[in-house]
Amino acid sequence: MFLSLRLSSHFLTVHRQTLNNSPFLIPFPRNCSIFSRRNPRTRAFYTKSLEQLHQDTFPLSGLEDALLGYITGKKKATELAHLIWQHIVQKGDNVVDATCGNGYDTLALLKMVADDTGKGRVYGMDIQNCALTNTSSLLDESVKSNEREIVELFHLCHSRMEEVIPEGIYLRLVVFNLGYLPGGDKAIITVPEKTSRALESACRLMGPGGLISVMVYVGHPGGREEYETIQDFASGLPAESWVCCKFEMLNRPLAPVLVLLFKK
Amino acid sequence: MFLSLRLSSHFLTVHRQTLNNSPFLIPFPRNCSIFSRRNPRTRAFYTKSLEQLHQDTFPLSGLEDALLGYITGKKKATELAHLIWQHIVQKGDNVVDATCGNGYDTLALLKMVADDTGKGRVYGMDIQNCALTNTSSLLDESVKSNEREIVELFHLCHSRMEEVIPEGIYLRLVVFNLGYLPGGDKAIITVPEKTSRALESACRLMGPGGLISVMVYVGHPGGREEYETIQDFASGLPAESWVCCKFEMLNRPLAPVLVLLFKK
Repeated sequence: MFLSLRLSSHFLTVHRQTLNNSPFLIPFPRNCSIFSRRNPRTRAFYTKSLEQLHQDTFPLSGLEDALLGYITGKKKATELAHLIWQHIVQKGDNVVDATCGNGYDTLALLKMVADDTGKGRVYGMDIQNCALTNTSSLLDESVKSNEREIVELFHLCHSRMEEVIPEGIYLRLVVFNLGYLPGGDKAIITVPEKTSRALESACRLMGPGGLISVMVYVGHPGGREEYETIQDFASGLPAESWVCCKFEMLNRPLAPVLVLLFKK
Repeated sequence: MFLSLRLSSHFLTVHRQTLNNSPFLIPFPRNCSIFSRRNPRTRAFYTKSLEQLHQDTFPLSGLEDALLGYITGKKKATELAHLIWQHIVQKGDNVVDATCGNGYDTLALLKMVADDTGKGRVYGMDIQNCALTNTSSLLDESVKSNEREIVELFHLCHSRMEEVIPEGIYLRLVVFNLGYLPGGDKAIITVPEKTSRALESACRLMGPGGLISVMVYVGHPGGREEYETIQDFASGLPAESWVCCKFEMLNRPLAPVLVLLFKK
């Protein structure tokens, strides 16, 4: 469907491209000052289609841009992932950052769930103390104390997330950013066995309409094996209750792969 | 960024949430008939934010909806592909439907390139005569003759597309919908060798900023081999000039895979 606004001297015509393609007209006075001034900027604004207007108005706002950017090589899979999360997560939700790293995902998640009610929670964890220190610093610098309070950080392997999520809590989103800590010790990596257990936990904790988002890095030693494990895990989830898909670059073999597991 | 239109009795105020957040005002006459009539429908239309208006107007129109629908199992890869094409193709472009089938893609492409100038062209081909008959009938039923004229149909294998695209023409989009003709003879399928040659041709004909979109079906005999061929082809394209990615369902092994090759 397509809707355009056209301004003539008598009518504001709203065209809606449907099967019958019949415009409806809104009467408009001849002496209207929008016209009498003939302001080119105003006229351009009005003679544009709403679709074009939307494109001009929200040039970088949406998931559309992230997806097209991904397809055309201008945006990273991580940017696409963040925009997808924004459309899944609602204010007041419970979410998990299973691999805090330097805290950028934790901060993004905080912004998605925080509201005046203070109901939302971000459970963040990492096996490395320095990752938690970095995350905590980033949050302290970036948000006010009332927002900071809804994040709980744990020095914990992601495979043990069930130990810290309170009973009866259902999660809307669990994010994994696998591999090693950027800027940290590259020898410390997530490993297939633990990641597999973490995915099992995430599946048990997930509420209907929730998403597990896994960014898989394949460029480091062990990365390819971990990717295979995740792919096998996702392939084994029942199609009746899970939608599992992946977005992958084909001619950049070291680019991260985005695996998404959506619970119906 | 967020843009809202608010209509007061004197001004049409356009708010654009930017850093300075300063609205600009368009003078509006007090006696304007939009107001004097106090038509609730018209008023609702104007007092809504543009974003809300867009959501109401294009409830299912956007790439965002198609992507989220794909991730959550509510929309097919084919729907996502169509929305992606719409964002790549411009009016007046030259595009190819390399496998017309029953003509639905051909019709969608026609709508994307057709405008008053009549410059755009859709080159459609299929190796099966009945596919071309179906496509031609669909176009005749669906569009006016001036639009119908910009489609050229060829009884031809997709591997021979270079024989019918005029010299000096660069393409914006080439779409492949592989496998067998729905409703036709399932023994007649696209085969890896021909598809590989067709992809090579499409790459040669493609202009910068153009896309090759391949919907690969893996559920029929030979489908998996064809998929491997396409994946190998895409993986071999140089990352400097091509962005090649794929969207794939993991726990629905027979679901089609969308492979996209974008020329930088």
